[in-house]
Amino acid sequence: MESLMRMLLLLLSLLVTPLAAEYRIQTVAQGLHHPWGLVELPSGELLVGERRGRLLRLNTDGSRTLIAGLPKMVSAGQGGLLDLALHPNFAENRWLYFSYSQPGKGGAGTAVARAKLTDTHLSSLEVIFVQQPKTTGSAHFGSRMVFDAQGYLFITTGERYHARDKAQQLDNHLGKILRLHDEGTVPTDNPFINTPHAKPEIWSYGHRNIQGAAIHPPSGELWVHEHGPRGGDEVNIIKAGANYGWPLVTHGREYSGGSIGQGTHLKGMADPIWVWVPSIAPSGMLFYRGELFPHWQGSLLVGALAGQKLVRLTLNGQKIVNEQALLGELNVRIRTLVAAKDGGIYLLTDAANGQLLKLLPATDQ
Amino acid sequence: MESLMRMLLLLLSLLVTPLAAEYRIQTVAQGLHHPWGLVELPSGELLVGERRGRLLRLNTDGSRTLIAGLPKMVSAGQGGLLDLALHPNFAENRWLYFSYSQPGKGGAGTAVARAKLTDTHLSSLEVIFVQQPKTTGSAHFGSRMVFDAQGYLFITTGERYHARDKAQQLDNHLGKILRLHDEGTVPTDNPFINTPHAKPEIWSYGHRNIQGAAIHPPSGELWVHEHGPRGGDEVNIIKAGANYGWPLVTHGREYSGGSIGQGTHLKGMADPIWVWVPSIAPSGMLFYRGELFPHWQGSLLVGALAGQKLVRLTLNGQKIVNEQALLGELNVRIRTLVAAKDGGIYLLTDAANGQLLKLLPATDQ
Repeated sequence: MESLMRMLLLLLSLLVTPLAAEYRIQTVAQGLHHPWGLVELPSGELLVGERRGRLLRLNTDGSRTLIAGLPKMVSAGQGGLLDLALHPNFAENRWLYFSYSQPGKGGAGTAVARAKLTDTHLSSLEVIFVQQPKTTGSAHFGSRMVFDAQGYLFITTGERYHARDKAQQLDNHLGKILRLHDEGTVPTDNPFINTPHAKPEIWSYGHRNIQGAAIHPPSGELWVHEHGPRGGDEVNIIKAGANYGWPLVTHGREYSGGSIGQGTHLKGMADPIWVWVPSIAPSGMLFYRGELFPHWQGSLLVGALAGQKLVRLTLNGQKIVNEQALLGELNVRIRTLVAAKDGGIYLLTDAANGQLLKLLPATDQ
Repeated sequence: MESLMRMLLLLLSLLVTPLAAEYRIQTVAQGLHHPWGLVELPSGELLVGERRGRLLRLNTDGSRTLIAGLPKMVSAGQGGLLDLALHPNFAENRWLYFSYSQPGKGGAGTAVARAKLTDTHLSSLEVIFVQQPKTTGSAHFGSRMVFDAQGYLFITTGERYHARDKAQQLDNHLGKILRLHDEGTVPTDNPFINTPHAKPEIWSYGHRNIQGAAIHPPSGELWVHEHGPRGGDEVNIIKAGANYGWPLVTHGREYSGGSIGQGTHLKGMADPIWVWVPSIAPSGMLFYRGELFPHWQGSLLVGALAGQKLVRLTLNGQKIVNEQALLGELNVRIRTLVAAKDGGIYLLTDAANGQLLKLLPATDQ
């Protein structure tokens, strides 16, 4: 009976979806070199980070200001300047958070720093998290940052590709989600705080490479997606202390074609709530709550790099009940999604000549 | 003056090399499924291991006998039944050694066992080496086995691809060459026997994936080659306790195209004596000492999988002074080389319908 109701609701939602394009696309900026992180400042100005290690403010008059003061980072492969986030009280304290690939003994690893943002530079720089250990290679640095309603900072990492089995071990930060206080200290109620040899920052483990994270508005839970190897991209609802299975459990396959691990399910490991096979290479994630797209309210939006589209997932409570592909006509790799204060949706495209686009309702509606 | 002499010698060697084919190729057996290990028994019969986990005796009358009694192994990707070796006193004690991919907690790893060979089965099975830790994935198991003149057994491993940084750490067996007594105990003069937390079996480290090893007859030294990632296959002369650099030092590049590590040389790490860029994917190795190919005496022969050829390297002492490509006309992947007692050269080709070939001098010479 319940599933019948759900089907009827689904059919209804298809009927009320207009067939004409629901949106128009405004090009806010171009000539951005592999932009990765994006935040909207209280002033309406935008901060964009280019992966090669440049932080730009896009001013409302169309000019750009290069913000100085970033620490040394490794800009190679998938590494460099990655995500940006504002402190929940940014308007008062001006703390900007950024994740990046930090060089050091043994190679490189993800790190997170925060600094006070002034008009032209970063000051009072504090490195608040350093992924241990560093490894060789330039893949799978993660990383997204998100604050929840209580002010905890979640950091998603990758398993650095050439060290994937570490995702199953608690003595390191690879393939993990971490939970910190805003200034970088460890909350005393983290799940492994009393586990011998475990890194106390760990909130969940068994992840491959997470480049999308957001707080689910009704529940306050952390939702993330992660890249699968060849197939097997996942959406997961994160529970404290849970094991998400990589690389022992996956819907993906080795790039060489062989099987990985022990199938798609193991007792004691959390299953994904959604899987993409083949992979879309998800990056960027947003629960839409704006007024401009009423049909999309409550939807989960996910960007796709290899998939070159914007995915809209319709939710029914904590279940995903429908998937819609949007923007395929643009042929762009989508790295990041950010909700604009006016209800529009900002998108960063991943390219040497990357763009900042804004999705707005079609004018003829 | 010395280099002038070397050039003259080289020119001379080219002049005396006949232009006509020096060899003919005898097909000894076919229909072998990815054959990997090969030994010639004192009787002249041949033992062949198929990677999928079958051990066959090729009898002199052309019939085949399946030898029963192999332990459980993981036959997937590059893993399965790998190298075969006879104890130096095999004629008396019948010990057959074999390396294979052993399943277990955490995935799989290279192991070595020995067993008494009877007419139809293996008995008295002893697992004498287990690579620690096991990891996920089905690539880079190594492995070759070679006994030196003193009776020590050398085992070459791989770094299991997804755990490559472990090749630089001494607390594990990944990306190492190991040295054992014939029954599996650790010689007391191994280089790291007194190093805290180091695995005592280690003879050398910093290797990627070694599928060719042989004792250099004049010096008694262990020579090996190893697979580079994308370019950077190496020939190395092994010194006890030395670090061969992977993945910090390599002539190769990431499959993604990016750079790896810190260049091609680092202080304190041993340099290769020969490098292939692009890669040939070397497998199998033999110092030729037979009578049938007088021009080849003292040459180092190396098989190539991706390169689909037999490489003959001319030595001058411990230097490689010339490289000749042979058998390119066959278009076969060469897995293994074994010296036949009559001076011919056995070759295994890597294919679902693999062959055992024998190289003999051309009849018209």
